[in-house]
Amino acid sequence: MEEDDPRERRSPEERERALMKALPAVVSHVFARAPGYRKRDPEVVPEEVTDRAALAKLKLLRKAELPELQRADPPFGGLSVIAPPQAAKLFSSPGPVFELEPRSVDPWRASRALRAAGFKAGDVVHNSFSYHLTPAGTMIETGAHALGCAVIPAGTAPTEAQATAAAQFRATAYGGTPSFLKVLLDRAAEMKLDLSSLTRASVTAEALPAALRKGLAERGVQVLQWYGTADAGLIAYETPAMEGLVVDEDVILEIVRPGTGDPVPQGEVGEVVVTILSGDHPLLRFATGDLSAILPGQSPCGRTNVRIRGWMGRADQSTKVRGLFVHPS
Amino acid sequence: MEEDDPRERRSPEERERALMKALPAVVSHVFARAPGYRKRDPEVVPEEVTDRAALAKLKLLRKAELPELQRADPPFGGLSVIAPPQAAKLFSSPGPVFELEPRSVDPWRASRALRAAGFKAGDVVHNSFSYHLTPAGTMIETGAHALGCAVIPAGTAPTEAQATAAAQFRATAYGGTPSFLKVLLDRAAEMKLDLSSLTRASVTAEALPAALRKGLAERGVQVLQWYGTADAGLIAYETPAMEGLVVDEDVILEIVRPGTGDPVPQGEVGEVVVTILSGDHPLLRFATGDLSAILPGQSPCGRTNVRIRGWMGRADQSTKVRGLFVHPS
Repeated sequence: MEEDDPRERRSPEERERALMKALPAVVSHVFARAPGYRKRDPEVVPEEVTDRAALAKLKLLRKAELPELQRADPPFGGLSVIAPPQAAKLFSSPGPVFELEPRSVDPWRASRALRAAGFKAGDVVHNSFSYHLTPAGTMIETGAHALGCAVIPAGTAPTEAQATAAAQFRATAYGGTPSFLKVLLDRAAEMKLDLSSLTRASVTAEALPAALRKGLAERGVQVLQWYGTADAGLIAYETPAMEGLVVDEDVILEIVRPGTGDPVPQGEVGEVVVTILSGDHPLLRFATGDLSAILPGQSPCGRTNVRIRGWMGRADQSTKVRGLFVHPS
Repeated sequence: MEEDDPRERRSPEERERALMKALPAVVSHVFARAPGYRKRDPEVVPEEVTDRAALAKLKLLRKAELPELQRADPPFGGLSVIAPPQAAKLFSSPGPVFELEPRSVDPWRASRALRAAGFKAGDVVHNSFSYHLTPAGTMIETGAHALGCAVIPAGTAPTEAQATAAAQFRATAYGGTPSFLKVLLDRAAEMKLDLSSLTRASVTAEALPAALRKGLAERGVQVLQWYGTADAGLIAYETPAMEGLVVDEDVILEIVRPGTGDPVPQGEVGEVVVTILSGDHPLLRFATGDLSAILPGQSPCGRTNVRIRGWMGRADQSTKVRGLFVHPS
């Protein structure tokens, strides 16, 4: 299989020790540099946040709170450890919610998802996510560059021009939504363009129906998905085993009862909450608003981290999940 | 004034010696790695191209030829020293003409133009050029990053969202077209957003009427322009002296009689032809199709390189330039 980060195969105990060892340093760093966090949890002693029970006492930071927090204390609500002039790129997503890309290689940690999907140095990656004001395009691009790939920044350019460029450059891999990948392949076929070079895809931002994945596989493209947000970057990613999404190595993941900050019993559906242990763009207990659940056991691919089921709906509304109604409060 | 590259202030003789010393090595490199060039000039001995007279014997590479050359020998007509998998980014401009961005810091050399326009580390640059399939967006972004600026990749996002982001991040500088800068400032004013932080702009891709420049200056924005193409990157740039555009330090510029490869007498209007002495993305005698002329004398800003007048029309049609008809053949 593809060459990967040895951290992906360490024992769960070793990983948990490493995460919990890093946690108090990250909380201290965030409390010192991002006063908005300290204001939310004035009683917390950062150095004492050394396990999941202590972490679970921090207030959740809900995505839905961000517009108001950022309006009151622009630009980031006091929740970023760096100011806009120190960022690489600055974004605005619908809300509006303002985000930043730090100045580092692979700033969204997307390379781990792309590598699991078979992307490697020398690949020509056709990137159909927009680069304009929102970060999806740069997530794919920076991850692909970290692996040594070339990128066609196709974005939302007209489909015909995208198909022409993908064929001319013999694109080998695709990043974007799965539905647009089908549109692109269909258009290329209509135009009698040869896109047989394209054999791998890493998709996100919408559901991947089994029939669509199968149809794309029959056309020679292996499609794997990943899950992340514009605030957190990569959270979890599919591997060739295609059994759930493996959590990223720099993420502490919790599944909580929607409307509360309380972790649910393992395996139950709840809201995805992430703590990102990244030096220049950390997040503490960020509640994504998305529902998922831990998938018991380990991936047959050899990666040892916890897995989640795919996206199971939004936590901010009553949602029917696999026949059960989940209420947010 | 802004800190700049000492090469910009060397004596014209020293610059010419350095350019002519580098030239045969670049021609040798190109002939060895890009067989399309050798095929066009089989008689040329690269090591003997040591002065402008020898350079002027190479066949012009016309922009209008590229679609056919690239169709016959995809993707680059044998005219690139690297293949798509070795590029950072891959582009397609109307034609279609396919271009690449090499893997280097400041790959389009745009930082020189931005620095002359007052951009510096810590600036927040609002970039309104598209990132999608064409390289204008990345030219500004990579140049700004080379200087240590943060970038808002606004592209062609809706004007209201762009104005909101520029105000939220307190953008200090702008890259894009001059006409859209006016649209952006007008919309921000309508929305009662404070964009007084924005004081510098580097514009290109369209004419900059004196009245527009004056109007923008009255609103607090100093606007300087630069000239380049998707194939060549930066060719020449305005400085605070605002007397013509100073040629980039890695460019050998010729002005030739349109329809021929013959240099015109100094000061006469002709087609802009450039040779780019860049290790990973060189170009030999690329005929831009644009008309301009050498402006005699030196810039009062202290930069010693040759200056050209702004864009004076297209060479591929009879064009009336300052009252004179210029015929391409």
